[in-house]
Amino acid sequence: VFVNGFPCKDPTNVTPDDFYISGLDKVANTDNDLGANITLVNVNRLPGLNTLGVAMSRIDYAPFGLNPPHSHPHSSEILHVAEGTLFAGFVRSNTEEGNILIAKKLNTGDAFVFPQGLMHFQFNLGDTNAVAFAAFGSQSPGLVTIANALFGSKPPIPDYILSQAVQLSKTTVDWLQQQDWVDIAREY
Amino acid sequence: VFVNGFPCKDPTNVTPDDFYISGLDKVANTDNDLGANITLVNVNRLPGLNTLGVAMSRIDYAPFGLNPPHSHPHSSEILHVAEGTLFAGFVRSNTEEGNILIAKKLNTGDAFVFPQGLMHFQFNLGDTNAVAFAAFGSQSPGLVTIANALFGSKPPIPDYILSQAVQLSKTTVDWLQQQDWVDIAREY
Amino acid sequence: VFVNGFPCKDPTNVTPDDFYISGLDKVANTDNDLGANITLVNVNRLPGLNTLGVAMSRIDYAPFGLNPPHSHPHSSEILHVAEGTLFAGFVRSNTEEGNILIAKKLNTGDAFVFPQGLMHFQFNLGDTNAVAFAAFGSQSPGLVTIANALFGSKPPIPDYILSQAVQLSKTTVDWLQQQDWVDIAREY
Amino acid sequence: VFVNGFPCKDPTNVTPDDFYISGLDKVANTDNDLGANITLVNVNRLPGLNTLGVAMSRIDYAPFGLNPPHSHPHSSEILHVAEGTLFAGFVRSNTEEGNILIAKKLNTGDAFVFPQGLMHFQFNLGDTNAVAFAAFGSQSPGLVTIANALFGSKPPIPDYILSQAVQLSKTTVDWLQQQDWVDIAREY
Amino acid sequence: VFVNGFPCKDPTNVTPDDFYISGLDKVANTDNDLGANITLVNVNRLPGLNTLGVAMSRIDYAPFGLNPPHSHPHSSEILHVAEGTLFAGFVRSNTEEGNILIAKKLNTGDAFVFPQGLMHFQFNLGDTNAVAFAAFGSQSPGLVTIANALFGSKPPIPDYILSQAVQLSKTTVDWLQQQDWVDIAREY
Amino acid sequence: VFVNGFPCKDPTNVTPDDFYISGLDKVANTDNDLGANITLVNVNRLPGLNTLGVAMSRIDYAPFGLNPPHSHPHSSEILHVAEGTLFAGFVRSNTEEGNILIAKKLNTGDAFVFPQGLMHFQFNLGDTNAVAFAAFGSQSPGLVTIANALFGSKPPIPDYILSQAVQLSKTTVDWLQQQDWVDIAREY
Repeated sequence: VFVNGFPCKDPTNVTPDDFYISGLDKVANTDNDLGANITLVNVNRLPGLNTLGVAMSRIDYAPFGLNPPHSHPHSSEILHVAEGTLFAGFVRSNTEEGNILIAKKLNTGDAFVFPQGLMHFQFNLGDTNAVAFAAFGSQSPGLVTIANALFGSKPPIPDYILSQAVQLSKTTVDWLQQQDWVDIAREY
Repeated sequence: VFVNGFPCKDPTNVTPDDFYISGLDKVANTDNDLGANITLVNVNRLPGLNTLGVAMSRIDYAPFGLNPPHSHPHSSEILHVAEGTLFAGFVRSNTEEGNILIAKKLNTGDAFVFPQGLMHFQFNLGDTNAVAFAAFGSQSPGLVTIANALFGSKPPIPDYILSQAVQLSKTTVDWLQQQDWVDIAREY
Repeated sequence: VFVNGFPCKDPTNVTPDDFYISGLDKVANTDNDLGANITLVNVNRLPGLNTLGVAMSRIDYAPFGLNPPHSHPHSSEILHVAEGTLFAGFVRSNTEEGNILIAKKLNTGDAFVFPQGLMHFQFNLGDTNAVAFAAFGSQSPGLVTIANALFGSKPPIPDYILSQAVQLSKTTVDWLQQQDWVDIAREY
Repeated sequence: VFVNGFPCKDPTNVTPDDFYISGLDKVANTDNDLGANITLVNVNRLPGLNTLGVAMSRIDYAPFGLNPPHSHPHSSEILHVAEGTLFAGFVRSNTEEGNILIAKKLNTGDAFVFPQGLMHFQFNLGDTNAVAFAAFGSQSPGLVTIANALFGSKPPIPDYILSQAVQLSKTTVDWLQQQDWVDIAREY
Repeated sequence: VFVNGFPCKDPTNVTPDDFYISGLDKVANTDNDLGANITLVNVNRLPGLNTLGVAMSRIDYAPFGLNPPHSHPHSSEILHVAEGTLFAGFVRSNTEEGNILIAKKLNTGDAFVFPQGLMHFQFNLGDTNAVAFAAFGSQSPGLVTIANALFGSKPPIPDYILSQAVQLSKTTVDWLQQQDWVDIAREY
Repeated sequence: VFVNGFPCKDPTNVTPDDFYISGLDKVANTDNDLGANITLVNVNRLPGLNTLGVAMSRIDYAPFGLNPPHSHPHSSEILHVAEGTLFAGFVRSNTEEGNILIAKKLNTGDAFVFPQGLMHFQFNLGDTNAVAFAAFGSQSPGLVTIANALFGSKPPIPDYILSQAVQLSKTTVDWLQQQDWVDIAREY
C-alpha cells in the first residue's frame, strides 16, 4: 500500500526507527565551489514523515560559504543560526514597488523567515564555519536552485532564450552552461 | 470586514460587476526588452475571486518575444496557445538525475502544464505575434521573475554573493545590476 | 504506484508529452440538443495534472447554443469569452434575500467568475459560433449537469419525488425521464 | 477583529455559551409544500464554529415529506435516521456510465453518505413523522436547492434558457417561475 | 488501487451499500468501568467515506457514565444530546490566562463544540441512560484517550517520567500502570 | 487589516525585522518543577509567520528535566537534539493493538518525529543540560500539556469525573488539583 507515492507500512510492524534519523550533529563536507552543504530530512530520507507535513534540514557553511539563491515550491521556512554569522535574505517579487530585498545580518541564536516560493539565500560572513537549521511546513518542501535551473539543466535551455532573459551575450551563456553547477542538496 | 486581507462586500450589495472583468481580447503592449506582456486576472484585479482559489492570465508575445524564466509560489499552471508557436518548458530541479528541462514546441491549440513553484518560460518561435492563456489554481498565484529577483532587487543583493552564485565576475554582476529589469506582470 | 487513484510514473521516465495535450483550437461538434460542447482538460485526460490542483476546458457554442445549468463540486471557475457574445450567470442560493441570479452579457474578451458548487450557465446570444475557455482550481473539478442529474439518472429518481420537488405532474416527470439527456462533457 | 468574515471574540471574554446551541430536540414546522424543515447549526448560527471545519443539522419530515434535491458546495455529509423510514440517494454525475442514482431505503439507525457537491435528497416513506441528523465537514457547507435555484431565482433565469435546459415549453417554465419555491433551510 | 491507504473501488462496481451503515439506533454495551461506549462511523468502518472529510459517532452513557478526557488529532466535533443530561466541556490550554475549562450542563436537544485537538469529556449527570451523537470534519478524526495513553501504553512510559509529569509517587504510577484501561472506542 | 486574527502590515512598510527574532542561543531558565523550558517561535511571537504555515521552538532541559506529556492540535513535529541525551516518545492511541509507546533514546544529532495531535514527551537522561530544537508545520501548532489540562484547569474539572477517568480517589484528585501546574510554554 502506497500513500502519496510512498510505501505505507503495516501498522503492526511500525517501530521507533521508522520515526528516527541520526547524523544532524555531523559537519557536512563543504569542499565544493559554494562552500556549503545541506543535510535534508524530508520524506525521501525519513519515510515516517509521510502525511505529517513537516521537514527540516541542517546547513553547513565554510568560511564565506554560500547557500545560493533558491526557493522551496511547497513550503515556507524558518532558519535559525546555531553557529556563526550569516547574511540572509529573500526577495519580495513583482510588488508595486518592484523587487524588494528583505535581508539582515544574523548572529548565533537569530532566526529568519523565508516565505513559500520566494528566492532566498544565506552567506557566511565570518572566517569560521557556520551552521544553521531550517524548519519546513511540508514533508516535501522541494528545492529550486536558481542558477542550476537556469544554467545547469539537461538538456540546456536554448542560449538565445537565456541571453534575452538575463541580458548576457550568447557567448557568456554558452560558457556558463559549460560550467559545473553543483547541487548541494539533491531532492531525493 | 476583510477576508484574507481583502475587503468583503456586504452580500446584499453584491452585483454581477463584482465577478466581471473585461479586456482579455486586447493585445497588450509588448514594446519592451522582452517582447512580451502579461495581463493578470487575480484577486488584486478582480476582488470577486477572493476565497475562490482560481485565477488566469493572458500573455502576449511579439515575434521572438519571451515570457522569461519565472515561477509561481502558490499555484501550478496550464497554458494553452491561442495563436502562434511557442517553445515552452520548465525545469525539474534537484532530482536524482540533476536539473531536467521538460520542454516542447507548442502550436496553436496545444496546452502545457507547469508544476507549482518550478521555473518555467515561453518563447515565441515565430515572426508573428503569439497569444496564450494561463489557468491557475489560486486566487494569488504569485510571481517570481528569476532575473529580476536576482539582478534587479532594491536594495541589490551584494555582488560578491551573486558572483559566487552565478559564476560571473563581480564586474559583470555590477553591470547586470545597473541594467533595467522590466516587470512585465507586476503582482498588484 | 498510484497517487490519488492515478498512476504515478517513474520520474526517470517522465517526458514533455506527460504534461502536454493538443486540440484546443478545434471546434467541437455542437450538433446536439443543446448546441454546445465541452472539451475538458482534467487529470483524466492529462495525467500530468495529478496533484497539481488546476484544470481547464474549452466550450463551443452553436448559435443560441447553451451550456446548461450545472455545478462543479470541487472548484470555482473563471470563464473568458474568446469569440462571440454570451449571457452567463450563477445563482447565489439560500441567502437571506432568497436565490439571487448574478448574470451579465459577456462580449469577446470579457471574463466572469462562478463560485465553487454554485449552479451556473452560459447561453450564446448571437447567431454565430461562440467559444470560451474556463480555468479551474482543481485537477478534478467534477461536473453536475442539473437537468441530467434530475431527469436522466439510471435508475430514475422516483417520479413522485421529482413531481413534489419541481412542482410538475407525475405525467410530465415521466415524459421528461423518457427524453434523451445528453452529457456534453462527460467527467472521465 | 474578524476571521473568515466572522467576528473573533477577545479570548479573555470567551464563555461556554459561545460553543453552545439548544433546540435540536424540537420538531420543526413542516407545514409547507415539501413537508420538511431543516434546522441548521453552522457558523452563521453558532459563531464558535468559526475556523473549526464542522457543522450539523436536524431535518424533520412530515409523512411523505421531502428534503428536495440539493447539494452542498463545501462539504460532504453523513445523515443518520433517528426516527422513521426514508428513501435517500445521490446522483453520480457525468460518469462514463452516465448519471447513476445511488439510493437506498433507510430505517431508524441507518446512515448514508452524500459526497461533496453531488445532488441528493431524502423522502419520508412512512405515514408518520421522520427525523434525521446530518454531519458536515465544513463550518459553512452551503446549500443549493436545485429547483429553487432553477425556477425561483430573482431575477429569473430567462425562460428560453430554462426551456432549452429542461426540455419544457416556455409556457410551462413561465408557470413554474410564478410558483412559490420555499427555502426550507436558508443559509444565514 | 489505493487512495489514502484505503482501497478505491472500481467505479463501475460501486453500489449504495458502499455508502451505507446500520445500527446507530442500538444501545451499545456500557457495562465497563467508565459506563460508556462509542460507536464510530469513520473510514475504517465505512469505506465510502474515503476522501470525503466527514465522520460521526454515537455515544451511549449508563447512569453516571463517562466519556473520559480525550482529544481528536484531526478534527473538531459538534456533539448533540439525543437523550439525557450531560456535563460536557473542553480545556483551552496554555493560554495567557492558564488552562481554562469551558464546560456546561447539556440537556436533550443541546449541542456543544469541541475544537480540534483539545481535551474534552462528557459525563452523564442523570440516573438514566443518555445518548449523544457527534459530527466530525474528517474521515479519520483519530482518538487519544488521555488516561489510557498516559497509564495504559505498551510498553509503559517509564514510571519516573510519569511520576514527574503528574506529581504522583512512582508507587502510585506503578499501581496505575497495572490497572486495566479500557478503550471504549478503538480507532480501527 | 487583519488576516487570521493577526494584523496585516501595509506591504510598503515591511522591513527585515518583521521576519526576524533573536535569542535562540540563550539557555532558558529551567528552575521549575519539571526542569525544562520552551522558547516558542510561533505567529504570536513572530508576526511575520502569519499565513506561512511553519513555526519552531527551542527546548532546554536541566539534568533529568522533563518536557512532560503534551500534544500539538495543529501540527506534527520533528525534534532534533542539539546537545545531550534524551528519551523521547509518543503514544499511538486506540489502535487495534491498544496504546503503543513509540520511544527511543536520542543522542546529540538524532531527530525524532511526533505525529499531529499525539501525546509525546522528552526526558533528559543525562546529568548535564540538554537542548533540542523542534520544527512545526503550522504557524500556530497549539499546545495541550496533559497534566495541566487534567488537573490544573480553572475552574477545575469536577473531581468525581477525574477520579473515574484516571482511577484515583477523589481525595488524591483534590490534592492534585491543589498543586501548582507550571506552563513551561504558554501559547501566547
